[in-house]
Amino acid sequence: MREEKVKVGILGATGFTGEKLVELLVNHPRVEISYLSSTTKEPVPYNELFPRFERVLDVKCEPLDVEKIKERCAIVFLALPHTISMEVVPSLLEGGKRIIDLSADYRLKSRELYEKFYGKFHKDEKGLNLAVYGLCEFFKEKIKEAQLVANPGCYPTGIILAIAPLLLEGVIEREIFVSSVSSISGAGRKPYLEYHYINISNNMWAYKPFVHQHIPEIEEVLEELSQQRVELSFVPHIVGVERGIYSTIYINFKERIERAQLEEIYRKYYSSSLFVRIRKGLPKLKEVVGTNFCDLGFWVAENSRKAVVCSCIDNLIKGAAGNAVQNMNVMLGIEEETGLI
Amino acid sequence: MREEKVKVGILGATGFTGEKLVELLVNHPRVEISYLSSTTKEPVPYNELFPRFERVLDVKCEPLDVEKIKERCAIVFLALPHTISMEVVPSLLEGGKRIIDLSADYRLKSRELYEKFYGKFHKDEKGLNLAVYGLCEFFKEKIKEAQLVANPGCYPTGIILAIAPLLLEGVIEREIFVSSVSSISGAGRKPYLEYHYINISNNMWAYKPFVHQHIPEIEEVLEELSQQRVELSFVPHIVGVERGIYSTIYINFKERIERAQLEEIYRKYYSSSLFVRIRKGLPKLKEVVGTNFCDLGFWVAENSRKAVVCSCIDNLIKGAAGNAVQNMNVMLGIEEETGLI
Amino acid sequence: MREEKVKVGILGATGFTGEKLVELLVNHPRVEISYLSSTTKEPVPYNELFPRFERVLDVKCEPLDVEKIKERCAIVFLALPHTISMEVVPSLLEGGKRIIDLSADYRLKSRELYEKFYGKFHKDEKGLNLAVYGLCEFFKEKIKEAQLVANPGCYPTGIILAIAPLLLEGVIEREIFVSSVSSISGAGRKPYLEYHYINISNNMWAYKPFVHQHIPEIEEVLEELSQQRVELSFVPHIVGVERGIYSTIYINFKERIERAQLEEIYRKYYSSSLFVRIRKGLPKLKEVVGTNFCDLGFWVAENSRKAVVCSCIDNLIKGAAGNAVQNMNVMLGIEEETGLI
Amino acid sequence: MREEKVKVGILGATGFTGEKLVELLVNHPRVEISYLSSTTKEPVPYNELFPRFERVLDVKCEPLDVEKIKERCAIVFLALPHTISMEVVPSLLEGGKRIIDLSADYRLKSRELYEKFYGKFHKDEKGLNLAVYGLCEFFKEKIKEAQLVANPGCYPTGIILAIAPLLLEGVIEREIFVSSVSSISGAGRKPYLEYHYINISNNMWAYKPFVHQHIPEIEEVLEELSQQRVELSFVPHIVGVERGIYSTIYINFKERIERAQLEEIYRKYYSSSLFVRIRKGLPKLKEVVGTNFCDLGFWVAENSRKAVVCSCIDNLIKGAAGNAVQNMNVMLGIEEETGLI
Repeated sequence: MREEKVKVGILGATGFTGEKLVELLVNHPRVEISYLSSTTKEPVPYNELFPRFERVLDVKCEPLDVEKIKERCAIVFLALPHTISMEVVPSLLEGGKRIIDLSADYRLKSRELYEKFYGKFHKDEKGLNLAVYGLCEFFKEKIKEAQLVANPGCYPTGIILAIAPLLLEGVIEREIFVSSVSSISGAGRKPYLEYHYINISNNMWAYKPFVHQHIPEIEEVLEELSQQRVELSFVPHIVGVERGIYSTIYINFKERIERAQLEEIYRKYYSSSLFVRIRKGLPKLKEVVGTNFCDLGFWVAENSRKAVVCSCIDNLIKGAAGNAVQNMNVMLGIEEETGLI
Repeated sequence: MREEKVKVGILGATGFTGEKLVELLVNHPRVEISYLSSTTKEPVPYNELFPRFERVLDVKCEPLDVEKIKERCAIVFLALPHTISMEVVPSLLEGGKRIIDLSADYRLKSRELYEKFYGKFHKDEKGLNLAVYGLCEFFKEKIKEAQLVANPGCYPTGIILAIAPLLLEGVIEREIFVSSVSSISGAGRKPYLEYHYINISNNMWAYKPFVHQHIPEIEEVLEELSQQRVELSFVPHIVGVERGIYSTIYINFKERIERAQLEEIYRKYYSSSLFVRIRKGLPKLKEVVGTNFCDLGFWVAENSRKAVVCSCIDNLIKGAAGNAVQNMNVMLGIEEETGLI
Repeated sequence: MREEKVKVGILGATGFTGEKLVELLVNHPRVEISYLSSTTKEPVPYNELFPRFERVLDVKCEPLDVEKIKERCAIVFLALPHTISMEVVPSLLEGGKRIIDLSADYRLKSRELYEKFYGKFHKDEKGLNLAVYGLCEFFKEKIKEAQLVANPGCYPTGIILAIAPLLLEGVIEREIFVSSVSSISGAGRKPYLEYHYINISNNMWAYKPFVHQHIPEIEEVLEELSQQRVELSFVPHIVGVERGIYSTIYINFKERIERAQLEEIYRKYYSSSLFVRIRKGLPKLKEVVGTNFCDLGFWVAENSRKAVVCSCIDNLIKGAAGNAVQNMNVMLGIEEETGLI
Repeated sequence: MREEKVKVGILGATGFTGEKLVELLVNHPRVEISYLSSTTKEPVPYNELFPRFERVLDVKCEPLDVEKIKERCAIVFLALPHTISMEVVPSLLEGGKRIIDLSADYRLKSRELYEKFYGKFHKDEKGLNLAVYGLCEFFKEKIKEAQLVANPGCYPTGIILAIAPLLLEGVIEREIFVSSVSSISGAGRKPYLEYHYINISNNMWAYKPFVHQHIPEIEEVLEELSQQRVELSFVPHIVGVERGIYSTIYINFKERIERAQLEEIYRKYYSSSLFVRIRKGLPKLKEVVGTNFCDLGFWVAENSRKAVVCSCIDNLIKGAAGNAVQNMNVMLGIEEETGLI
């Protein structure tokens, strides 16, 4: 007997993240896409908007309608802009739906930080209290039971996975320097002149140093995990590649450490985490592009307490849609890698 | 009356740097390319090797022959691999030629460091004593008279220009973290599978962290300039762009500093340096690609002694051939920007 | 009860095509990769050669050994260079294996043409007689029973799919102009300076006009299908993209034709072909990259008997590995799209 | 004594073409940029809009004001959108200015064709009568004296240069198939989602087959030159490269022709044309990018009357701004290559 498939909906299905969710869920053996929404005014076949999906998906993309979502879906992915998710979440929760929110709206516990970094008063305190941070590598037990999962930001995913084990082991100083380089796809599908092919191709620049909205997320989650505060000097960059984030993390250890010890720490935390790979050397971006893996590699400086840890992910997969599917798998109690390898 | 043109030769004219030297010197109003060499066995028209130069340059590329160089050139550019330059320099010096060496052979004062990082005993002590470090922004007076100029490495150029003023002013701590991202063109024109289009495009990786051969160069030059030692944690990366280096430099100031003070320091050192631009915001790589500029931008963290300085250059121009031409202009006593803007 | 998986081997597993076969077959629900070979001298874990496959595949890549293949595989994919496949095929056929050959060795019926275009006498006449041309859209019945399938060339796949219906309907003149633009990945993973990132990125050129080895393949297959000779003026190009082939085909119709008639012809031939999509407008390359689809679009000139048909495929999937898996599915009697959507 | 520089203005200075004009004219030894306009509402330093020009150009970009242009410029470049140029040209002509118009407004002699392809009634008949088609390789004498030069379209430049000699010699059939592939920079700097980096990178598509607005331009100019009508089947494409157009042209000769004869024809017409290079093999796009060259290469099919001619240009230089500067040089009676090599 064939198992019945779980019905899932995707709100914001026409952004880069929404499109990637569709791609992953279309091929997922245990779910069925039963609802797609965007800012469209009339229902329109999704594969007319994205001809790539002709012959692959035959579902319409509709104006967002909470009642229809409640009727048709058991699980709802929110690939909506920040500050919009919290408009929709309360009624979906009321309707008993399980939610995976890919916006930033439920990631920060602190409403002050949310308001400071996202510019809007957070009105859904109840949702915030329910929300579980959706990083399976550290919060799997909570995610299993969660009704509302806050899918991590793209930069935080790779950076937290690189730092958390070291912090939990208590071996590093609190001051950490991080330089991350991201594809422009992380900035969303927007008709800006700045994102024109000619402006991105062969270009690179730093932006929002020390003030990027992902800094409080990283610091809060690391503190929750380890009860220690880190001091993150974070400088993100955009570079002309199609996909991925490469993070280079400068660590000061409390005492000299050997490469083997460092490897042991990582293996301790990730031996059962299918999607974190400890590399022998430094990782290469293209080895994770198109996958849900986070690759970690590191290098210990000779005669020093310094090391560098490099982490890379596909920003639309492990940094967004893939990680969301991983969360869904855990929530459904099925194998974590289903539909992802 | 038309001025007579200075005759210049380029050894190693078929590498990326040699080719860029040809391109710049062909258009230079005060010099004439009178000699080109490569590993070719027979003389061959340069524009057969590089059809781009048909109608533009009509000179042959020949096997390296020191006697011919002595006859035909007043100034010689060495775009040879490291450890090869020092084989040629002594006899060219003897022949009274002025030399701009783009290899690493005469950059380090310390022969121990040279041997450690380049793997070969340095046999030309005389040349080493004569050599002037070819960064016009700080050593112009010496370059004017120099017989042998050691053109800086590509990473050091952008990094030294970013750090030196701060160090000279005595305002920063000695510990500095640098993350640099470079085009693969910096690695030379080699038929390696690793440099295949498919392996580079959309890829990125870190390499040689803490151990790159440019670290001693940066540290030595900064110490010579400021009498202070810095401690550089340097991690270079390769990314799939055609040209340029973007360096992100984390600085700890001894005391809190305002943006305006920082800007004042840079303006103090670079007000008369045509090719260093202090940007209002953070620089973008593509604004220097194809030019001899080094763009600097910075950002001071709020309520902290930290700042980030970003620097970018075209690795083949300001990071190699363009800077070499700038040196030549200074050596010839002509306007520094001739042929470069 | 779980079905037993069919054991498959891939010879030449480290080329672009071999690697793509591994990627597709790893995720295929009905087969198991039981053998991989390359020019390696010692067995080595495939995921050491391609770290992308760590955690995904745990099979060694071995020196080619026909006896081991016979022991371990039911179906063998040959992703070997042209003229090498025919060295291996005879003994595999003798061993009763079913073979999908991705080289050109069994595509041409004419041994004269083979020798002319591939420069070697074809010694396996028996294999040639057995071989079935592996284009499921036209030869599915033969492929079902085939012991040896010759997987089509990358250019021929997209071009034959575009032309064959028109020829079968007898509506076009024999003279056809085709301009195709391909990714460099079609040229194989080779350490050539010509394939260096800097030489490919942002570059484009035509090569082998009128003389490319895929011309006789296209002409022979079209003649076999339609009993008509076409006269193909074919000019292939390389362009700096990572994947795909875009073919632009100029057709002269015998009589004026309407867009609707043309569409009807295509629908007649491809209504049951899952992997050929008839587009409303002209196709875009990126909509097929990463898929096994061949997208076709066309445009009829006003007041004229001319039309253009554009066809695009991912050269490594529908143009090589994906099509080979499609053939395997048909040979195994399972759903044609298994593992491909 | 230093010669006085000619004062030039650029209208539409912020598009891709306008920006390239600025870049070329800044370095031109005989002119001075004295006026720049765009759709800006207030005058703003050009190097604030394009920080690339800091230290290089110190001119403001202003709202378009015909009186100011008349005061400040001797020659005016119009890099305005089609249908806008003809609003400005009449009063500039009245003011005695010499004009190089880079829009399509004065390229077509036929006002019917203009209206059909550009969708607007052409109201400046006087200007149309004055206008000279700005292709120096064929109309140099007229350009010398012209008051109004219509700079050719990007596709026409490369295609006319490839076809005209063959047509003038009377050796080819009238039916010609052309497939051209262009960088997206040809479509202008517009904030369209379609031009987003992710939509262009690694993508390719055909558009406007048989109906592109450059078809009547090519046909009209070729007819004017040769008194013969050609029948052009033209299919343009966009591909994910930064710069350039590659045109592949299928020619049917009236009689069999040898490669040497073909070469002789081209040499006859271009021996004194500095910017047209006859290549030994087929040309490569990257050899013309960044230059004002048009490279031509060809291949004659064996035992047939067919040949292919390939032509490539940098669409922003020989296809727009560079060719406009070449026209200006001819108009000024100075060396044609000034500022262009």
